[in-house]
Amino acid sequence: MTTHQSDDAVRHRLERARETLIERGIDALVCFPSSNMHYLAGFEEEPMERHLFLFVTPDTQLFVAPEMYDDQIGDESPVDDIRTWSDGDDPTALLESVGNDLGLAGGRLLVDDRMWALFTQDLRGTFPEASFGLASEVLEDLRLCKDEAELEALREAASISDTVSEEIRALGETAVGMTEDELAAEIEDRLADAGGEGVSFETVVGSGPNGARPHHRSGDRTIESGDPVVLDFGTRAGGYPGDQTRTVVFDGEPPAEFDTVHDAVLEAHNAAIEAVEPGVPAEEIDRVAREVLEDRGYGEQFLHRTGHGVGLDVHEPPYITAGNDRELEPGMVFSVEPGVYLEGEFGVRIEDLVIVTEDGHERLNDSPRTWQPL
Amino acid sequence: MTTHQSDDAVRHRLERARETLIERGIDALVCFPSSNMHYLAGFEEEPMERHLFLFVTPDTQLFVAPEMYDDQIGDESPVDDIRTWSDGDDPTALLESVGNDLGLAGGRLLVDDRMWALFTQDLRGTFPEASFGLASEVLEDLRLCKDEAELEALREAASISDTVSEEIRALGETAVGMTEDELAAEIEDRLADAGGEGVSFETVVGSGPNGARPHHRSGDRTIESGDPVVLDFGTRAGGYPGDQTRTVVFDGEPPAEFDTVHDAVLEAHNAAIEAVEPGVPAEEIDRVAREVLEDRGYGEQFLHRTGHGVGLDVHEPPYITAGNDRELEPGMVFSVEPGVYLEGEFGVRIEDLVIVTEDGHERLNDSPRTWQPL
Repeated sequence: MTTHQSDDAVRHRLERARETLIERGIDALVCFPSSNMHYLAGFEEEPMERHLFLFVTPDTQLFVAPEMYDDQIGDESPVDDIRTWSDGDDPTALLESVGNDLGLAGGRLLVDDRMWALFTQDLRGTFPEASFGLASEVLEDLRLCKDEAELEALREAASISDTVSEEIRALGETAVGMTEDELAAEIEDRLADAGGEGVSFETVVGSGPNGARPHHRSGDRTIESGDPVVLDFGTRAGGYPGDQTRTVVFDGEPPAEFDTVHDAVLEAHNAAIEAVEPGVPAEEIDRVAREVLEDRGYGEQFLHRTGHGVGLDVHEPPYITAGNDRELEPGMVFSVEPGVYLEGEFGVRIEDLVIVTEDGHERLNDSPRTWQPL
Repeated sequence: MTTHQSDDAVRHRLERARETLIERGIDALVCFPSSNMHYLAGFEEEPMERHLFLFVTPDTQLFVAPEMYDDQIGDESPVDDIRTWSDGDDPTALLESVGNDLGLAGGRLLVDDRMWALFTQDLRGTFPEASFGLASEVLEDLRLCKDEAELEALREAASISDTVSEEIRALGETAVGMTEDELAAEIEDRLADAGGEGVSFETVVGSGPNGARPHHRSGDRTIESGDPVVLDFGTRAGGYPGDQTRTVVFDGEPPAEFDTVHDAVLEAHNAAIEAVEPGVPAEEIDRVAREVLEDRGYGEQFLHRTGHGVGLDVHEPPYITAGNDRELEPGMVFSVEPGVYLEGEFGVRIEDLVIVTEDGHERLNDSPRTWQPL
């Protein structure tokens, strides 16, 4: 596994994080295997039941890690202070000694937002005098605006999604008779063939009434002629994910109301993207999409927020939702994905990723947004 | 997505959990999307950034969920009290009202061991007078011993791994010249073809020196003639994972010391499995494997514990490690996977899953454990 994060980028991020810790009087960030650890130290690992932490303090940074990860961390991360423990040892003894070395006993510690309760309980037990907050207090601002290497990876991931989107739609009537699971497997094979690194999330193929469930993945339902099918998928490139949705009809005549709904969602989608520029609050993008769908009589059937930020995590800030008044800034990247869900009938969702640029926005996806067979 | 957990099994588990809460004076379990939620409520979902919790109290159980999950939870779970919030709402207001309904304000709450800090902070903020512990205090004992349906699923998953293990080894010299990534993709395709449901974990193909890193996955190294290759993979069946390791040579002559090391690991593996029976402490199984490898002069190169429990989570209790004096009981399922890692040269690991039975053990894997081409 390669890390995708250059040593220079990592050093620059650590420096910025340390500056913020000093400014705000925070004693340490404690990251768990997550996108935060990947971002700050260049080391990518799944959450695990063993104690594996990155400590960043105003003065230094170090890993606490299972012995068997020593070599891999050494190879992949420029952080070279690695304190190890072995299976059979008590890792909290090591935590305590690291805490002494770093002077954390009565300090302010910000733990990874995705750290498991198993470990936050352990940290609270080990440092009973410390106060605790969330790492996002410092890291959210750092991660929100992507650097040029990150944007390039996101563009590449989007381009692979576009390629596969067109290929899959070209199946036309061939897709009729396939189950959702079979079509999902076909999509995933093609993402890999097109150079993708695994999937960004479980592929969604929601045919007919299954499309009316925003978080349906895929199942054994057979795609029928005339079915609207929600296709929501993505793969990673350079470590960064794509995330794209199209709603299509492979063959035959869709239900009577479908074209009207698709047109409404497409208008909401385009209007929201057109509104993207620096200085606009995130909630305004949501409001624009929602207003179109309300005007068209589908406000009640738009069940979710308009979008989510995309970076090392496929769902991350900024969330494009009512109540989020954070102003958009150049370098932010997020999805715009309004949807309308008619229970028991069908769903329509259309999603592209956009980058906020100095004077507006750049749309990352350009595969056709129409529903008709290509 | 199907849940794989029968409504009867779920009701029985909820009843047992509620009894334990009463016995121990605990006011609520709060599960996050995880194997605990799947086990207790039959609803399977990935961890997510939206508030989605299962509350289980001595009297009742209910979901707090994003509105768009309402239908899916209703379909998949026999828990029918679902309190929903919408994107744009403040979910902590709903948490507060649920807390009032359930009388949790000053109570003892056990949170999912894998709940994100983001949410435990929220619960601490919402219930400042409550005391917090981990759900495993109650759920570990419940989940440790598998019921017959769970064992059947685990047997099926192991059988698929065996089939694919033999197919892959039959590639023989064809595998020489493939990259690790290519062979990993081949393994995953065959797992799916054999009826598996996705992979249990990222497939490991560790060739030559890469095999000496216990947590290497796969990379762009080309498999050469004479390379020892660690193959560690599994798929799911009925929701439960397989996990099997073989170390093989596809073609040619391995390094001089390899056969000796393989023989030592195989002896440790078999000796540890032979020691599995009810009443034996988990650490004893680890000790048996370690003793063989120490006697053979490889104690220092056995870098990890001997095994881990396997259930809805591919790593769960009981951990087969020094310091774990929990006695084995019928229905426990775990891996036995000693390994020896010679840095810069090669690694050897051999892993089977075993069930503890009334009078001993049942080995779930029966594909050949030899290294020679089949």
